[in-house]
Amino acid sequence: MLGRLYENQDCSAARTLEIVGERWSLLILRDAMFRNYVRFSDFQRSLGIATNILAKRLDSFVENGLMIRQGDDDPGEPREYHLTEKGLALMPVIIALTEWGDQWAQPGPVEFRHATSGARIELRLMDTVKDITVRPDQIRAIRRQKV
Amino acid sequence: MLGRLYENQDCSAARTLEIVGERWSLLILRDAMFRNYVRFSDFQRSLGIATNILAKRLDSFVENGLMIRQGDDDPGEPREYHLTEKGLALMPVIIALTEWGDQWAQPGPVEFRHATSGARIELRLMDTVKDITVRPDQIRAIRRQKV
Repeated sequence: MLGRLYENQDCSAARTLEIVGERWSLLILRDAMFRNYVRFSDFQRSLGIATNILAKRLDSFVENGLMIRQGDDDPGEPREYHLTEKGLALMPVIIALTEWGDQWAQPGPVEFRHATSGARIELRLMDTVKDITVRPDQIRAIRRQKV
Repeated sequence: MLGRLYENQDCSAARTLEIVGERWSLLILRDAMFRNYVRFSDFQRSLGIATNILAKRLDSFVENGLMIRQGDDDPGEPREYHLTEKGLALMPVIIALTEWGDQWAQPGPVEFRHATSGARIELRLMDTVKDITVRPDQIRAIRRQKV
């Protein structure tokens, strides 16, 4: 957590960044999502970060409901950190970051595929009325309508 | 820029975070994209951050080609920072963060609409073969195939 770094921001993007905006947070979630890591030691080896920082991040994910911790009651087994539905729902953020890096920095080592069919997966900005893709310059943010 | 914080990570998401992963970066881009802010003073008022941090962020966006600076040669006019296509291409990252916050934190004040038709815009994970939406738990990252 960034504390309440963005507390004067009434904005859902800012609220999300309060939870996942600190250094390494999104890469830990990437490893949980796409490498199926669940153990502290796996995250640590993959990222090479200080153990106190990694512990802080994982604890905050548990606290915020992005992960659940297992194995607390069995001292013979290492603790495991498993993504919840809420944590897995951050996948579009990771894919959006990846697609931008692929296109504007350099093509990275992975691509996203459907687990069973192998079809390529893409993130798209969709017009929900016409069901077509729209370009960023066609999109505006407007104040939400009361329902 | 995070320096080369993530330099041992061969990963496009990490490369993107090197450019936009520091505190406030994504909220500055949000203001540029959706509030059409171009002036230092507008960003400063909106975010309330220290001017030296804001200046550093804007300079790094110019350096990395996300923005171009205008008005350097006219001392009578304030400098303006305009998003490039590369900067605007980060819109899916902002929308992904916003949609997650709307769903999992609390509904925020804005929604995304098509500029002319007003149709609601959504970010979707699409199967590019069947042209249907897929859930995060159906998606895998695999090593990119050589072409």
